[in-house]
Amino acid sequence: MSSNVRIALDAMGGDNAPAIVIAGASIARKRYPYLNLSFIGESKKIRALIKKYKNLNDAKIIHADDIVAPDARPAQVLRRGKKTSMWLAVNEVATDNADAIVSAGNTGALMAMSKLQLKMISGVTRPAIAGFIPTLKGLCCMLDLGANIEVDERNLVQFGIMGASFCSAITGKNNASVGILNVGEEDQKGFDYLRRAGTALSDETLNLNYVGFIEGSDIVTGNTDVIVTDGFTGNVALKTAEGTAKFFMHHLRKTFRSSILSRIGFLLTRTAFIKMRRTVDPRYYNGAILLGLNGVCVKSHGGADSIGFSNAIGVACDLVKHEFIPKVNDSISAAEKVIQFSAE
Amino acid sequence: MSSNVRIALDAMGGDNAPAIVIAGASIARKRYPYLNLSFIGESKKIRALIKKYKNLNDAKIIHADDIVAPDARPAQVLRRGKKTSMWLAVNEVATDNADAIVSAGNTGALMAMSKLQLKMISGVTRPAIAGFIPTLKGLCCMLDLGANIEVDERNLVQFGIMGASFCSAITGKNNASVGILNVGEEDQKGFDYLRRAGTALSDETLNLNYVGFIEGSDIVTGNTDVIVTDGFTGNVALKTAEGTAKFFMHHLRKTFRSSILSRIGFLLTRTAFIKMRRTVDPRYYNGAILLGLNGVCVKSHGGADSIGFSNAIGVACDLVKHEFIPKVNDSISAAEKVIQFSAE
Repeated sequence: MSSNVRIALDAMGGDNAPAIVIAGASIARKRYPYLNLSFIGESKKIRALIKKYKNLNDAKIIHADDIVAPDARPAQVLRRGKKTSMWLAVNEVATDNADAIVSAGNTGALMAMSKLQLKMISGVTRPAIAGFIPTLKGLCCMLDLGANIEVDERNLVQFGIMGASFCSAITGKNNASVGILNVGEEDQKGFDYLRRAGTALSDETLNLNYVGFIEGSDIVTGNTDVIVTDGFTGNVALKTAEGTAKFFMHHLRKTFRSSILSRIGFLLTRTAFIKMRRTVDPRYYNGAILLGLNGVCVKSHGGADSIGFSNAIGVACDLVKHEFIPKVNDSISAAEKVIQFSAE
Repeated sequence: MSSNVRIALDAMGGDNAPAIVIAGASIARKRYPYLNLSFIGESKKIRALIKKYKNLNDAKIIHADDIVAPDARPAQVLRRGKKTSMWLAVNEVATDNADAIVSAGNTGALMAMSKLQLKMISGVTRPAIAGFIPTLKGLCCMLDLGANIEVDERNLVQFGIMGASFCSAITGKNNASVGILNVGEEDQKGFDYLRRAGTALSDETLNLNYVGFIEGSDIVTGNTDVIVTDGFTGNVALKTAEGTAKFFMHHLRKTFRSSILSRIGFLLTRTAFIKMRRTVDPRYYNGAILLGLNGVCVKSHGGADSIGFSNAIGVACDLVKHEFIPKVNDSISAAEKVIQFSAE
């Protein structure tokens, strides 16, 4: 790996593209000066915007005529989307012109295009969307956040292995603890496939720190570093946590505005509250990875601002620097030799 | 129905039974003077505790030799639990000596004993656990919270009908809106059985205010009154919301303690914060109903304190007063005549 990290940016994906993509890239470049950036999209627009940022004057621009619509279906974009900024950005990684791709566009399309161009890690049957959420002790990684509404035990085991690698690459934590999301901690709770996945993840030869079943209330305690679940439950849990966070921020604002005394109280606690807000600010957790692909593909939230987008670039950068793809390939192939699933 | 509401209380269920059951009953009696209470459990203990509360001196005591263990399995308690306080409390309703039963004991055992003694509402294939959670606009009812880890479209439709009745009885709101929890609002998202349930719930002859699919982030907005889902997802979503709430309360405390200025700020905003805390205090939402049974059976959280337990008694009381069971029987039998499920 060269000392530079080459990242292809889908400049046209997301609600406020290409402006926030370019602004976000400039923020990321300050943090990671060794980034080598390519913007893929409408070259005229990109060129005009890039002029504002001195630290982007060496960025490469690759023109794309077309854009993936936010509501386009995967099958449709695979047929007709070869001229889109997303396809061409993924292609940069597929042709080894970039080490990672970041997009804030349509998730289903990004998954479909990446599966086709980057291929899957050998042995991985289903890719997963993995992201970080804030906890009382730092960050935890949860997957699948919505790529597969149904999974089996083999998928869950692979999610556990890949999630632990992902978590280590981003947080630097070795021996990340892995738990399976369930409706109770007791062994007899939930579905049979969860029990089978638990048994497989406990296999000592896997060298995983498997901690058993965890419940929804345990997600934010931070006691488990990697939480594996199906994409339906994971998506609902993540969005429920986000909704509850908004609910509290709304009540906080209302409380501080409820009287003159409260307003004065807010002024006195302001610095501490700004710090607390930063702890739960979703922009600092932006950047989910499409895990299981044989290349680094990071999905930014479509509504992310420049700070959020810069964070997604940071995730991609960290994964490349930590040689995540070769490492996760090794872990999966080692696991495939060990684990026997009863269904086979 | 007599003007009194007769409630049988499993005095031995929950972490701090019978003390909190009796203290909670006294609080409830102040709010609902027409309550006619029976305590079922160790009569000596109950008699000693009851003396402390003047407004409980007319309560009936029914002795029970045995207690359902918190970790007992349903099959086990059905075989050997006929002398437990829980069984005898449910029996009061089954023999029309009470209009409702409230227990803070083992949920699985309560469900099993109630199904056997109270029977199901005719046509209902699966009971559900339904509870309320705070939202930005008041309360919303969510079900199933964990009775069935898997459901089909008929279950979901029945949950919608019963949930709307439950919501009306407790909040007084007519024409409660009903939504299905999914991973997106678009029609093509999620599982086929969710789409079939959606189509059935839209049937005009059902007279339901069905609003379509909703996401995890919509739960606490308060735009949907009744949210139906399978018991796995519902359980995870509820516990995730509870965990996130605790996460925020923890950060709030930490923020207010972070400096002398913050501590003074807290003193100034104290009154407003106590009001906010009350809005999200789970004690005021305690009391889930086992929905689908042909009798009112309310489950209190096992760790509830006396205020929480009094709220569960309040839920039971409201349901009896609003003639919930006959009404929900009518709604289900009307729906059964209308809806055809493709699987049949």
